[in-house]
Amino acid sequence: MKNHTQTTTHQSVKKEKVLTGDRATGQLHLGHFIGSLQQRVELQHQYEQTILVADLQGLTDNGHNPHKVSSNILNVVADYLAVGIDPLKTTICLQSAIPALSELTMYYSNLVSVARLQRNPTVKNEIANKSFGSSIPTGFLTYPISQAADITAFKATLIPVGDDQLPMIEQTNEIVRKLNHIAQEEVLVECRPLLSKMPRLPSVDGKSKMSKSMGNCILLSSSVKDISKAVKAMYTDPTHLRVEDSGQVEGNVVFTYLDAFHSDAAYINELKSQYQQGGLGDGTTKKILEECLQEIVRPIRERREMYISDKSQLIDILKQGSQKSQEESNQVLHNVKKAFGLTLF
Amino acid sequence: MKNHTQTTTHQSVKKEKVLTGDRATGQLHLGHFIGSLQQRVELQHQYEQTILVADLQGLTDNGHNPHKVSSNILNVVADYLAVGIDPLKTTICLQSAIPALSELTMYYSNLVSVARLQRNPTVKNEIANKSFGSSIPTGFLTYPISQAADITAFKATLIPVGDDQLPMIEQTNEIVRKLNHIAQEEVLVECRPLLSKMPRLPSVDGKSKMSKSMGNCILLSSSVKDISKAVKAMYTDPTHLRVEDSGQVEGNVVFTYLDAFHSDAAYINELKSQYQQGGLGDGTTKKILEECLQEIVRPIRERREMYISDKSQLIDILKQGSQKSQEESNQVLHNVKKAFGLTLF
Repeated sequence: MKNHTQTTTHQSVKKEKVLTGDRATGQLHLGHFIGSLQQRVELQHQYEQTILVADLQGLTDNGHNPHKVSSNILNVVADYLAVGIDPLKTTICLQSAIPALSELTMYYSNLVSVARLQRNPTVKNEIANKSFGSSIPTGFLTYPISQAADITAFKATLIPVGDDQLPMIEQTNEIVRKLNHIAQEEVLVECRPLLSKMPRLPSVDGKSKMSKSMGNCILLSSSVKDISKAVKAMYTDPTHLRVEDSGQVEGNVVFTYLDAFHSDAAYINELKSQYQQGGLGDGTTKKILEECLQEIVRPIRERREMYISDKSQLIDILKQGSQKSQEESNQVLHNVKKAFGLTLF
Repeated sequence: MKNHTQTTTHQSVKKEKVLTGDRATGQLHLGHFIGSLQQRVELQHQYEQTILVADLQGLTDNGHNPHKVSSNILNVVADYLAVGIDPLKTTICLQSAIPALSELTMYYSNLVSVARLQRNPTVKNEIANKSFGSSIPTGFLTYPISQAADITAFKATLIPVGDDQLPMIEQTNEIVRKLNHIAQEEVLVECRPLLSKMPRLPSVDGKSKMSKSMGNCILLSSSVKDISKAVKAMYTDPTHLRVEDSGQVEGNVVFTYLDAFHSDAAYINELKSQYQQGGLGDGTTKKILEECLQEIVRPIRERREMYISDKSQLIDILKQGSQKSQEESNQVLHNVKKAFGLTLF
């Protein structure tokens, strides 16, 4: 294998394509870092990776509050660079800057029934969690079609997701098969999930999903003070009143974060035993966690400050990535239009 | 007014914009001619007219049978030219060749709820008339949003429609108002209907809507024989068995067509009286109608044969019109993206 790659030119090694992305609705936080961003930094060495800043998808539930999306596009790009995503290795592009994504969505809309969208478990859950009432925006119901457009436009075959997102992969592959059936050839390629090993990080208050907008998370841009405050406010075991009492580790957000972020698992296991036996105070565990998080966030925050101070560089990266993506996706669009017989000129 | 226009250069007279279009799902027929095409030939002198060959909309209920759409695009363009639509006066363009229409549809999708689409009377009726079962294609439910994209992309303010299409105008103007509210300025312009005076022409068999696919209509390309056959098969008064019997004019398709197509209304009124009194046979009325229709269709058919024989000319017309429309619609798209704050580069 080593010999083979040595004798092959760089261009001819066809790497598998990976697509990920983030809705541009807020700054990224430690949940993104541990659940996805760290993995992407690794993936960029093995795969041809595209990251989509999903501003259009962000609008699907913010149509009347677009500032929430527009003001966060460069924040998200700065977050990427700060954690070590390298624009020379990873294509970072902006959804709204790639017309083929909208065009593909239009074509695919004819291959998916309304009932099928309404059955999508991911969308169903998300609709239940949001306060749309009876006013579900059309763009929100149909966003799995738009995601299928994203995935197929970049010929991505490996999609890092949490298991809650598996129905999106399924929907995409249904569209792929339908389109290929119409074309009578393999115009689009099916994709498969790369399941995240990391469970979803709980919010600081332990109550809900970590949310940029609900202020219960630690952002990658958090200051020393913010982190300190967040750790101090962290949910532990409410029945663990005195240091000498035995405490519960399950559901104790401090330990969940220590598990996720501390490099020394054996040490954390010792702490857990001690906490369960009694004699370890929340003040101590929080101090250990805070030190650990400060250490992790500090270099990210510092790099982030540097990147966000040069907006024109961020715009440039996004523009170049989007131009590259335009070319790729226009080719796929051409093939899809050909499948529908619509390439008169 | 006359003096004013005389001293004004041609460019500075800003004509109001009119948009019409046809789903490219079949050749156009006499129903289109009397209900819309004749009017468009007039409109092109007074207004800045765009005609959209709606191939994407045609796909919304033909996603799995795209040949029905792709094979009819040039047929429709030939029909336009044959009735006298002049590409020097009217911009004829192809929906799938104008990316901004898909992009605008994506943006507008965030401003319209699913419930609102499901309440749309036109779509409700159409869904009831089609045999979708529980599998309504998403593109079909959402096509009013796509129509709003078409109308606004060309800044069309006058939309010739039948009264069954009024809900489409209403939906468009709702989107216009929402978008302008977000932008805090008049980015899009509201449109108004130009209601057709002509009632919908019945099918030859009198039973259903004239349909290209059901073979109960007279196409603009119909041969002498086809027309003769269609008129002979036309539904009259089934109780009018003998010439001397009195016959019914209402619901008698022959008289409906005579009303619509014969140039001498007084003469037709005389015929009606005679028919009602008895003494006028269906053979005679059909002979009068056939002569009239042969006269109308013959020059159209002949011109159509000429146009359809030069496909590259038709493609050229469509291509040029689409290029012009791309420029117009990209400008509108830019303004809409600006309203959402999405014009980073």
